[in-house]
Amino acid sequence: MTTTPAPMADRPRTVVIVMFDEVQSLDVTGPLEVLTAAGRAARPDPGYRVLTASLDGRPVRSSSGLVLTPHADLRALPRLDRDRPDVPALDLLLVSGGSGGRAPGADLVAWVRKLAPRARRVASVCTGAFLLAEAGLLAGRAATTHWAHCAEFARRFPEVELRPDALFVRDGNVLTSGGVTAGVDLTLALVAEDLGREVALTVARHLLVDLRRPGGQAPFGTGPAPGRSQPATHAGPLAELRQWIDEHPVADLSVAALAKRVSLSERQLTRAFQAEAGVPPGRYVDEARLRAACRLLEETSDGVESVARRSGYGSAEAMRRAFARSVGIPPSEYRRRF
Amino acid sequence: MTTTPAPMADRPRTVVIVMFDEVQSLDVTGPLEVLTAAGRAARPDPGYRVLTASLDGRPVRSSSGLVLTPHADLRALPRLDRDRPDVPALDLLLVSGGSGGRAPGADLVAWVRKLAPRARRVASVCTGAFLLAEAGLLAGRAATTHWAHCAEFARRFPEVELRPDALFVRDGNVLTSGGVTAGVDLTLALVAEDLGREVALTVARHLLVDLRRPGGQAPFGTGPAPGRSQPATHAGPLAELRQWIDEHPVADLSVAALAKRVSLSERQLTRAFQAEAGVPPGRYVDEARLRAACRLLEETSDGVESVARRSGYGSAEAMRRAFARSVGIPPSEYRRRF
Repeated sequence: MTTTPAPMADRPRTVVIVMFDEVQSLDVTGPLEVLTAAGRAARPDPGYRVLTASLDGRPVRSSSGLVLTPHADLRALPRLDRDRPDVPALDLLLVSGGSGGRAPGADLVAWVRKLAPRARRVASVCTGAFLLAEAGLLAGRAATTHWAHCAEFARRFPEVELRPDALFVRDGNVLTSGGVTAGVDLTLALVAEDLGREVALTVARHLLVDLRRPGGQAPFGTGPAPGRSQPATHAGPLAELRQWIDEHPVADLSVAALAKRVSLSERQLTRAFQAEAGVPPGRYVDEARLRAACRLLEETSDGVESVARRSGYGSAEAMRRAFARSVGIPPSEYRRRF
Repeated sequence: MTTTPAPMADRPRTVVIVMFDEVQSLDVTGPLEVLTAAGRAARPDPGYRVLTASLDGRPVRSSSGLVLTPHADLRALPRLDRDRPDVPALDLLLVSGGSGGRAPGADLVAWVRKLAPRARRVASVCTGAFLLAEAGLLAGRAATTHWAHCAEFARRFPEVELRPDALFVRDGNVLTSGGVTAGVDLTLALVAEDLGREVALTVARHLLVDLRRPGGQAPFGTGPAPGRSQPATHAGPLAELRQWIDEHPVADLSVAALAKRVSLSERQLTRAFQAEAGVPPGRYVDEARLRAACRLLEETSDGVESVARRSGYGSAEAMRRAFARSVGIPPSEYRRRF
């Protein structure tokens, strides 16, 4: 698993982090601090020159109110390093996220589109993927964004192969990361690639973050946490049945049993269920049991066997398999983290 | 494990985050974003009013070069809320870290000392603990700071009961957290206390961080990672023996065997070893085996049994016990994270 670092660079790799009003400040500072610490840890390699940049070089107001003053004006970047036409002007063009990234102005989109071909690699943090997609840089590519905005992203950019569960996705020289702190995971991976695993490990330890986080975004958002995948309101003719499923994970929830309960044929039930809930009854039952298990793991200290039984799994092993499939981490680790 | 939130506040809880030149930007933005997201998740509770503040209200240059413009001037804070003498002016006074926090100016120390009694709770992130200690706020208390600066802290502030392994420590109304992102862990704990566990969980999921991280700082720094607890240079008459131990974790490393190897009595060896290495030979051997195990877990995909054998543990179980004692997480999780 040891990676060999790339040969030492003869000058710092220029990284530009794009900021805008309503940027998420952690989307900026996470990658910035990873790259800064990596430069220190990698000496004598010159590491990175990290420039934050806004459209006009003016300070931006982050979504939490903190005002960040960028190092550079995005519009001045094409002049960077024009004395060295043999190397890309930018080693990495990284677009931050935040609510401002989901609805970027046309000027900002145009500048990102213009700068991208000058960068060896292009990346986004969190909802910065919306900006990359607006700029046409993700068409036909695999990508991810904050789990909470995946549905909107999929609707707006059907041409992108969205991977909601990933912490970050690489497709060629374009990298996208999931919500907020996933930008740190992405940047650590780039550091490992550029400067070797030892440097990335040193940085991770310094910042107190894991070098590799198991489970991707699923344990945080796209997995079956209580109150999330469960429809907010149960409406429609099968509302009562769905609520009954939620409240009785231990019951016989086979399609046959459910159909009988509402006096429909299995075929009628399956069709009506799919139309109303968007998923077939079996899938809904799987998710309801996972939600019940997550809730018990979070809110009780009951053993895994007991949680499995009370969530309707035949055995702890069956629950473990369901977790491996849908959450990406085992039940015991889910409990430790939440 | 369910916590009951405190009663809804009738107005936002005022939090002040203290910044200075050479601040670590993540020490500011981590707590800031946790508190901002918590306010949104807790509605209709008014949540937090978060003010970043510097000594004169002027922008500060963070250690990675990003310029942060504070909301407020520290010197103006005593005027806050003087129309409501019944409530503390500040709900939380939180001091960031960074190299600027380790050598704070006398003015900054004086202002923190002056404001602390007006705050319901005082906290620090990372090396911000140095500033709290300089202000006399940690004397006789348990506290922590970044693992890499614990030795310096212990030397400078012997009156503080230092806990190097903790992610954060609470002692009465004073809270201190470990390196960099541990400020997020501390702030999430405060959010759970103020607004309930559900809100804290929502925030953790939004930011993609764990609500509870197992193992404290030990897996990152104070534990036995390769090249860290191992003395950087082996000097002194026993240098060769220590290097031999490092390279032969599987050998018979009993005090008797080691003493024989260097032709000393066991008593002579123990005394000389302690004087030279700062720890008795048995402890040095334990740490050398842990370092060997960590390295194998990081760099190979060998099974736990094989790693245990190659690190000189009698069994996987013995290695697990050593990890539980010194690293705080099991070998399997250590491997997943690093």
